[in-house]
Amino acid sequence: MIVLGIDPGLATLGWGVIESGGGKQKPLGYGCILTSPEQSLPNRLLAIQQDMAALLAQYQPDEIAFEELFFARNVTTALTVGAARGVSVAVCAAYSGKLYEYTPMQVKQAITGYGKAEKRQVQEMVKLLLHMDAIVRPDDAADALAIALTHAATGVARQQFLMK
Amino acid sequence: MIVLGIDPGLATLGWGVIESGGGKQKPLGYGCILTSPEQSLPNRLLAIQQDMAALLAQYQPDEIAFEELFFARNVTTALTVGAARGVSVAVCAAYSGKLYEYTPMQVKQAITGYGKAEKRQVQEMVKLLLHMDAIVRPDDAADALAIALTHAATGVARQQFLMK
Repeated sequence: MIVLGIDPGLATLGWGVIESGGGKQKPLGYGCILTSPEQSLPNRLLAIQQDMAALLAQYQPDEIAFEELFFARNVTTALTVGAARGVSVAVCAAYSGKLYEYTPMQVKQAITGYGKAEKRQVQEMVKLLLHMDAIVRPDDAADALAIALTHAATGVARQQFLMK
Repeated sequence: MIVLGIDPGLATLGWGVIESGGGKQKPLGYGCILTSPEQSLPNRLLAIQQDMAALLAQYQPDEIAFEELFFARNVTTALTVGAARGVSVAVCAAYSGKLYEYTPMQVKQAITGYGKAEKRQVQEMVKLLLHMDAIVRPDDAADALAIALTHAATGVARQQFLMK
């Protein structure tokens, strides 16, 4: 099974793809979709839409896991972060009905066994679980791989994406 | 010139299309895209994306005006309202670069001459300006026509959509 993990954001959207099966996971690719504050919001959202569609076409994931957003510094930030997330969710929904989401605490719990683990501990475990030589950079790509690993590990207890 | 006005939202997205030229405006169509809280968020966003794309194909607007969102009850609401708006903005950005936005106060000012006008006054003026027999229902469709009229009236002082 191929799992795409997504850590959504407007300036930086982290993504990571793993292949999972027989209790093993290997990384297929990871990276970030970047948009510049110098672009207009419509152009940034359009770039996310197009780059996400290209990722789906390239990796053809069987299932897609998002980090659940329920926090933002303020309403203004939430409107633009929500916009970026909405665009990436809509692109994925057009591609597949198999969308899932996990809170940051669920990701930390699944990856390290401790829901309040430090970011660094999560990154070390991602490296270990995927047999990589070094910690994944940038951070958002490492987070996205952690989300994909969480989904692969969560099994039947999977949380269907049904956010209101 | 054909102008599409959009009052974005997740449960109800109001839209209104006018033809504007030679100092006159006439309505070409209006309505609402509705999504149910019983659907999942991905499915609601996907429905908005598909219905918006169908609207653009049907009316082929030359320019598109959005109501600017800068308010929400709280961060959670802002994340979902922002998601709905982000999806509709991205669909429009894929269709055209001619996107504009106006604050509620700018709309009231343009339509009634008074930036703090009551909703009812705006609706009466929309009816008058478009030579309609009755006030447009639902409210969100009337708001969308008001946004389109605002754009048509604003002329060279148009505000390019460049929200950060």
